[in-house]
Amino acid sequence: MAEPLTLDEFEAIARETLPAMTYDFIAGGAEDERTVAGNRAAFERRVLRNRVLVDVEARDMRTRLLGLDLAHPILLAPTALHRLAHPEGEVATAQGAAAAGALYTVSTATSTPLEDIARAAPQGPRWFQLYHLGDREATEELIRLAVATGHRAIVLTVDVPLLGRRERDLRNLFTLPPGIAMVHANEPAWSRSGEDAARAWASPIASRTLTWDDLSWIRAAGGGVPLLLKGIVRGDDAEHALNVGVDGIWVSNHGGRQLDGAIATLDALADVAQTVAGNCAIVVDGGIRRGTDVIKALALGADAVAIGRPQLFGLAAGGAAGVQRVVELLRAELDLAMALVGAPSLDRLEPDLVG
Amino acid sequence: MAEPLTLDEFEAIARETLPAMTYDFIAGGAEDERTVAGNRAAFERRVLRNRVLVDVEARDMRTRLLGLDLAHPILLAPTALHRLAHPEGEVATAQGAAAAGALYTVSTATSTPLEDIARAAPQGPRWFQLYHLGDREATEELIRLAVATGHRAIVLTVDVPLLGRRERDLRNLFTLPPGIAMVHANEPAWSRSGEDAARAWASPIASRTLTWDDLSWIRAAGGGVPLLLKGIVRGDDAEHALNVGVDGIWVSNHGGRQLDGAIATLDALADVAQTVAGNCAIVVDGGIRRGTDVIKALALGADAVAIGRPQLFGLAAGGAAGVQRVVELLRAELDLAMALVGAPSLDRLEPDLVG
Amino acid sequence: MAEPLTLDEFEAIARETLPAMTYDFIAGGAEDERTVAGNRAAFERRVLRNRVLVDVEARDMRTRLLGLDLAHPILLAPTALHRLAHPEGEVATAQGAAAAGALYTVSTATSTPLEDIARAAPQGPRWFQLYHLGDREATEELIRLAVATGHRAIVLTVDVPLLGRRERDLRNLFTLPPGIAMVHANEPAWSRSGEDAARAWASPIASRTLTWDDLSWIRAAGGGVPLLLKGIVRGDDAEHALNVGVDGIWVSNHGGRQLDGAIATLDALADVAQTVAGNCAIVVDGGIRRGTDVIKALALGADAVAIGRPQLFGLAAGGAAGVQRVVELLRAELDLAMALVGAPSLDRLEPDLVG
Amino acid sequence: MAEPLTLDEFEAIARETLPAMTYDFIAGGAEDERTVAGNRAAFERRVLRNRVLVDVEARDMRTRLLGLDLAHPILLAPTALHRLAHPEGEVATAQGAAAAGALYTVSTATSTPLEDIARAAPQGPRWFQLYHLGDREATEELIRLAVATGHRAIVLTVDVPLLGRRERDLRNLFTLPPGIAMVHANEPAWSRSGEDAARAWASPIASRTLTWDDLSWIRAAGGGVPLLLKGIVRGDDAEHALNVGVDGIWVSNHGGRQLDGAIATLDALADVAQTVAGNCAIVVDGGIRRGTDVIKALALGADAVAIGRPQLFGLAAGGAAGVQRVVELLRAELDLAMALVGAPSLDRLEPDLVG
Repeated sequence: MAEPLTLDEFEAIARETLPAMTYDFIAGGAEDERTVAGNRAAFERRVLRNRVLVDVEARDMRTRLLGLDLAHPILLAPTALHRLAHPEGEVATAQGAAAAGALYTVSTATSTPLEDIARAAPQGPRWFQLYHLGDREATEELIRLAVATGHRAIVLTVDVPLLGRRERDLRNLFTLPPGIAMVHANEPAWSRSGEDAARAWASPIASRTLTWDDLSWIRAAGGGVPLLLKGIVRGDDAEHALNVGVDGIWVSNHGGRQLDGAIATLDALADVAQTVAGNCAIVVDGGIRRGTDVIKALALGADAVAIGRPQLFGLAAGGAAGVQRVVELLRAELDLAMALVGAPSLDRLEPDLVG
Repeated sequence: MAEPLTLDEFEAIARETLPAMTYDFIAGGAEDERTVAGNRAAFERRVLRNRVLVDVEARDMRTRLLGLDLAHPILLAPTALHRLAHPEGEVATAQGAAAAGALYTVSTATSTPLEDIARAAPQGPRWFQLYHLGDREATEELIRLAVATGHRAIVLTVDVPLLGRRERDLRNLFTLPPGIAMVHANEPAWSRSGEDAARAWASPIASRTLTWDDLSWIRAAGGGVPLLLKGIVRGDDAEHALNVGVDGIWVSNHGGRQLDGAIATLDALADVAQTVAGNCAIVVDGGIRRGTDVIKALALGADAVAIGRPQLFGLAAGGAAGVQRVVELLRAELDLAMALVGAPSLDRLEPDLVG
Repeated sequence: MAEPLTLDEFEAIARETLPAMTYDFIAGGAEDERTVAGNRAAFERRVLRNRVLVDVEARDMRTRLLGLDLAHPILLAPTALHRLAHPEGEVATAQGAAAAGALYTVSTATSTPLEDIARAAPQGPRWFQLYHLGDREATEELIRLAVATGHRAIVLTVDVPLLGRRERDLRNLFTLPPGIAMVHANEPAWSRSGEDAARAWASPIASRTLTWDDLSWIRAAGGGVPLLLKGIVRGDDAEHALNVGVDGIWVSNHGGRQLDGAIATLDALADVAQTVAGNCAIVVDGGIRRGTDVIKALALGADAVAIGRPQLFGLAAGGAAGVQRVVELLRAELDLAMALVGAPSLDRLEPDLVG
Repeated sequence: MAEPLTLDEFEAIARETLPAMTYDFIAGGAEDERTVAGNRAAFERRVLRNRVLVDVEARDMRTRLLGLDLAHPILLAPTALHRLAHPEGEVATAQGAAAAGALYTVSTATSTPLEDIARAAPQGPRWFQLYHLGDREATEELIRLAVATGHRAIVLTVDVPLLGRRERDLRNLFTLPPGIAMVHANEPAWSRSGEDAARAWASPIASRTLTWDDLSWIRAAGGGVPLLLKGIVRGDDAEHALNVGVDGIWVSNHGGRQLDGAIATLDALADVAQTVAGNCAIVVDGGIRRGTDVIKALALGADAVAIGRPQLFGLAAGGAAGVQRVVELLRAELDLAMALVGAPSLDRLEPDLVG
């Protein structure tokens, strides 16, 4: 295998490496996958208006995000069931992320216990993505476990009241292989029975009744760690989040796996960033594959970006080293792009770089 | 046959099941079929700006439409000659619609007598689509028959002064098979003679002289049942309709079968809805294939949506059960989409959900 | 051969019928043929906002254009060398045009003497398209001949200061077959020698020095017949034309055969029509293939439309009968489209029908 | 070989003639080559609104640019290592350029000594493109050599703080063939070792620390010859350049070889030209392949245009004669286009010709 030169090449390797059902589970999106395509198209549609004759010898992409000092603004978005992509699963992801200096957001749908992930890479910064488990006490317990195992923020996913209709999985009668499960969540019906696939969206990790009112007990269970909401695409929802004291907003449409035809995250970011006006942290994911994509997101108001599928493609292609290489490749592209747009530090990425 | 997962899969089955000439008659549109494509493109072009953290446990898509309590806002648009798609024709459609709780708009061009349709599904709500038959008395009689057989509104089609030029039919020298006919309309020339196909648009169901002045006697013949106009795409025509006391406006371009290059119905809907401002019911059809399409139409001002071709594809694929399944599939997608956009009831579908 | 159902089908027949070099000469455009594509795209981009419930029983497409009563507003644009398309050449075109009631604009580049054309169809209305022949006296003489042979207007082409670079012809080393020539113009170099093809644009029918000042003697030579300028795409040029007393403006980009990347004629029409404000006749050509295209052009301000290539495709496919059938087909489509947009006469075609 | 009719045909010949690795080095761009495509798309998107009835018998494309009288406004952009394209390299380019009357901008990355280039075509006007060599004294010496060998302006490239990521070269493990080198620059690492290709962007010709402050010593070293900045795409950078006394701005995104997703140069030109308001010379490159492209660039504010890849395709196809033919072909197209838009001299090319 030649060393992949792009994140898309990692996807090509993963497509060859993984069983088709697994690849489809990772790569696919809801229904006609318009949101998946729309996220990438939003980046492609925008151009960069680069500055010249700026001294870019010393490029600095370090950033401070909700109390954490990060080597760079590229995060790993929460994704489910890493053991589908590689036998070492989340352990390998944690090791690769730590090696690449990437903040890793562990998913409630992890296939590895939080304790094991923490042990695998104790120094790597981690956040914990939270799904409401349908039971308040169980959810509070999970939050406490996450905090106890070193996760430095709770990222509450708010765009899964029901599971999106992922038709590749329905066609494939997707089931989990023996020995792979969500270790901290009730097992969803579809995970064992292809026959039930048509009702996949009744997943127990979906939270139909989760509302703004739940944020107080979720925050309380976190005992002071920051709380982010993941899945916001509207300025008014962002304003509401600010008003109730949320620490960060993660602009996301779940990588196109939930609502098909949702607004592209880069388009949503502008609306959200204008409302937030710097009063809380903003993360964005969805379609980021190039260093120039990171530039566009940061210039339009994000404090950090997150990659979802590419981390799994890296994991499938090479375990921890693959994850590390994916992040480092994107980081190198970002470093180059910072030089080429004339912004040697992240605070120089202003909206007027994007046209 | 695997259970179809999408409305488009029902079309694929119908394409395999039906004679090519029949499939083309159903699927085809006027001339270059730009309107057909434009209707769908208008839905694809728009994105959804979903709200989060709304309690969507109890989703309610019941609606009241011109005096009828409906389980959901998905209607069957009037379509001709169901016996072309399935031997049981409109009887099966009525049964499938009733089983799925869908209001069924029976066409003047039915291939089954209204009495038989009524008997087949006495509880299913029905409207009657009216073509002027070229003779006032015959038309009045047909209206009275429709009312007597339980149709709860008259939907007057206003966009067929002449029949559109459907070139697939002209190429196929389309003719009706023996034993299938419009039982309540004069037989059009083209139905028996392929040689006359080039003059297909001189159809007797086309109403070249129908004007606003005819609405009074049509309404009178209905004896008080509501009157809708189907085929309006302009705000000023909608305003005229309101002024003469019409009860409902059905925004439609006849599924692209009449004027090629007509404005897409979703685009027309905004203009119409702004003029109507809630003063009469609005239905829209044309290109709706997904639950999110329904969301977009309702958010932009429609009270209900209607599907045309998909009902016939369902009918071809599985008779009454196929029709039922098509509606239920779209309804399930709508239910999911309501949850995902954060609108647990139809009145929460506001224009700013659409971008 | 099945009877063609569309103008594009006539093109398909012509492509099969004609030698490739001849087909390319007719169908091709300048350079990358962006103007050719742009003309059609401009029609496809616009939609129709049709009115309903208008009495369209009596549709009237008669029009009066610069003193001529025409059965319909579809003209034959001037095109060169009809004997390339059919042995009977302009004689057949004139007969077909007359049979179809179409005003025929005979080209200076005719391959048949004007007298013979006049004799072939004495009743058919004709205009004469004029190229400056490079010699004022010869040009005046040609104008006088045109008037004497019954041409009722002079259409001066103003967009050929040099001949456009038609690369299909350069690649094909296009030459005229023996026995076919421009009978009223000097023979261009490229007509006999493929070797000179690379300098095709130095054609003697190109008029590098033609300016506004020449209009007075051209008009004088016409002895009072109306004068139109063909090839105007700008409002300010149209205004200039009005100021010097021109009788009509023919919005055209020469069917994409001159300036590649020129503004589409439908786009130019809006600018021109606004300036002209009804003060002179407006004709438009370029990309018209459907009755709905005619509707769009007339609604946006044209008094008549003209077709170029389709007449030659009809001629190639069937001589005079082919020309007649092309016009009648487009006229039938226009008739239907008038009904479907709710405009029973041409004066009902208003700009707000187009969106 | 048939004589190529278009610049794109020269590319086709070069693709067949050159080793794939060399063709890719010339034709390729950074990353996904969106900038490469975007430059051409910007020309294709714009249309021309041509004037008519202008006397264009005498067309004059002579221009005066920073003290040089040029036969036409088509320049050769600086490109590296011409001996890759043809054994005679920059000597042939200089001869072809001189024969075609084109100002030739010799690159710092020349594979032929400046003295030899000067000797090859002593009368041909030349500018010198400057990369900062990483060492001020060496750079000053190179400037002095350029001036001494007859280069009439210094064109400082400002968009290469680091080398763009050209993935074709990375995939091809591009290396320089024996005997070909940058004779006036340090040899970049990648030129000899495919294994180092992944770090290609650490090229010694990249100037990470070059800033506005360096312009004074660069200008001083030039001893009074004009200074242009190549790679500006923003109005504010252009304004800065004016303020510090730069003589010309070369709007460029390095042919899409540096920042992928950069604004198209034709789009950037409008912003720059408005700021410059005639106060310094403007050159633009990127995607120019047709005479009408030149028209659009000049009408939107450029004083001259430059072609990069096409000169190398011409060089590959036919040495000096190929370069000459490429320029003459484009010049002939420009001459024709000036006639067709009704602008017999360059000062008649106004913004309102472009729509």
